[in-house]
Amino acid sequence: MQHNLSEFIEENKKIIQEELSRQMHNLTIPEQLKDSMVYSVKAGGKRLRPLLMLASFKAYSEDMKRVLSSAVALEFIHTYSLIHDDLPAMDDDDLRRGEPTNHKVFNEATAILAGDALLTYSFEIIANEPALTETQKVVIIKHLAKASGPNGMVGGQILDMEAEKREITLEELETIHKLKTGELLKFAVRTGAYLGGATDKQIEKLDEYSHYLGLIFQVQDDILDVTGDQEKIGKPVGSDELNEKNTYPKLLGLQGAIEKKDQYVNMAKQALEQASAADSYLMDFTDYISNRDH
Amino acid sequence: MQHNLSEFIEENKKIIQEELSRQMHNLTIPEQLKDSMVYSVKAGGKRLRPLLMLASFKAYSEDMKRVLSSAVALEFIHTYSLIHDDLPAMDDDDLRRGEPTNHKVFNEATAILAGDALLTYSFEIIANEPALTETQKVVIIKHLAKASGPNGMVGGQILDMEAEKREITLEELETIHKLKTGELLKFAVRTGAYLGGATDKQIEKLDEYSHYLGLIFQVQDDILDVTGDQEKIGKPVGSDELNEKNTYPKLLGLQGAIEKKDQYVNMAKQALEQASAADSYLMDFTDYISNRDH
Repeated sequence: MQHNLSEFIEENKKIIQEELSRQMHNLTIPEQLKDSMVYSVKAGGKRLRPLLMLASFKAYSEDMKRVLSSAVALEFIHTYSLIHDDLPAMDDDDLRRGEPTNHKVFNEATAILAGDALLTYSFEIIANEPALTETQKVVIIKHLAKASGPNGMVGGQILDMEAEKREITLEELETIHKLKTGELLKFAVRTGAYLGGATDKQIEKLDEYSHYLGLIFQVQDDILDVTGDQEKIGKPVGSDELNEKNTYPKLLGLQGAIEKKDQYVNMAKQALEQASAADSYLMDFTDYISNRDH
Repeated sequence: MQHNLSEFIEENKKIIQEELSRQMHNLTIPEQLKDSMVYSVKAGGKRLRPLLMLASFKAYSEDMKRVLSSAVALEFIHTYSLIHDDLPAMDDDDLRRGEPTNHKVFNEATAILAGDALLTYSFEIIANEPALTETQKVVIIKHLAKASGPNGMVGGQILDMEAEKREITLEELETIHKLKTGELLKFAVRTGAYLGGATDKQIEKLDEYSHYLGLIFQVQDDILDVTGDQEKIGKPVGSDELNEKNTYPKLLGLQGAIEKKDQYVNMAKQALEQASAADSYLMDFTDYISNRDH
């Protein structure tokens, strides 16, 4: 099959945006809260997580109706995590993707509540989705809560905060990334496959794929901080070194980091083959994430 | 049936504490995050919400095994809301129940994340509860998300913040309380009854009961701020007036507020009778909440 990833992204991003708008539109809630939620959801970005979910779904099935609410819930959770991350008490960022962060436009209290609301609404959306069976709802909620809560993303954020104060090993670095970003990527890929009808064995292999994909994502992030174009990555080159962040180039050298990434790309692709998904857009996403320049 | 509410509270509070501890113990997560979550969960309080759920359950059934995880999830959500409420950007409270608030003991970032973690973990607990059917899990998650999210508690908090700046009508005041505290009380009562096997009609009547119970709770809170004992209520008498808060005595006068409360007590009890729950501890809780001195 001839793939055109840009076309896939363009087409499906539009579908995701529409579903995000539709789910926000459904909310009849206090205006200030809604404005604040909508502001950050619309601020956009790559929509990588929902796109991965759709790519994974399409490796096994066609009609996307039943996967869209999970894709939207996932993006809401990602958005809430960015709002809370940007708060003065956390990363204290005034800008995200070149636009003022939520608490700068509204205020801190509203930003905290908008994050809480998006997180909670994610579970409500899945529980209310008529296209899902009850078993599917429970499985998805279970995995989404685990991937985003204390056993996943929130746990990773605490570890990341602690690690900023000291030098860590490669193993510790990978644990942080696994929790902080890897678990939600895994949720994206496995939920798409699960709803698409993949077998348990295939899902297991996809979990392996996601593990490597998360690491590739992070290694490339660290490499871009050394070799990237400031305009494209949206922050000064070398800011990780300046902030004494733990990174792959710091631990392995630049060449070592590139080699590590190539190893991970091979392992990711091997897992995809074993999941009978070598012909899917997940294959293209692997290269895309590995070679991205921002 | 002869009731002894103190005995009921003492006995069931112990069961709830044990279940809270057990569910916290189950978490193998970064230490700092766990310490912060445990600190606020253990800080305790009246455990009113889970106690109401058990009282409601017992109006219709006996073996409590299947209701405990929902009671714990509800208390976790209540705890998360207190942690976020106390943050400097929100109410900026240094003390809660005489003890330092979460962000004073840990730090703001940890307190934000501990709140996020408790909220997320609540849904995970219900999705993983072996004593519940899938239908029950979905129904409970749906109602819990609605009661605590933008359509419920979080929405009420935004409205409450906005209302501090201006005078509001009694109707507006009641909408705020309904969202901010009423919806979770309703969740407590209806989930207990639902898992206890109450009919849809009975649950409908209990929703009415909870509506009045939430209002009684709030009117008495406002009355105590005028007539209470500073030692018992844990804040200076008259602090609402000082902070120009919208309260029942401010809108109706003290006598008017007391009469309003008595009306609500009658309507709550009438709804309980119609739900065949007049002989349950919910009846005793109505008086308890109406007459409490702290």
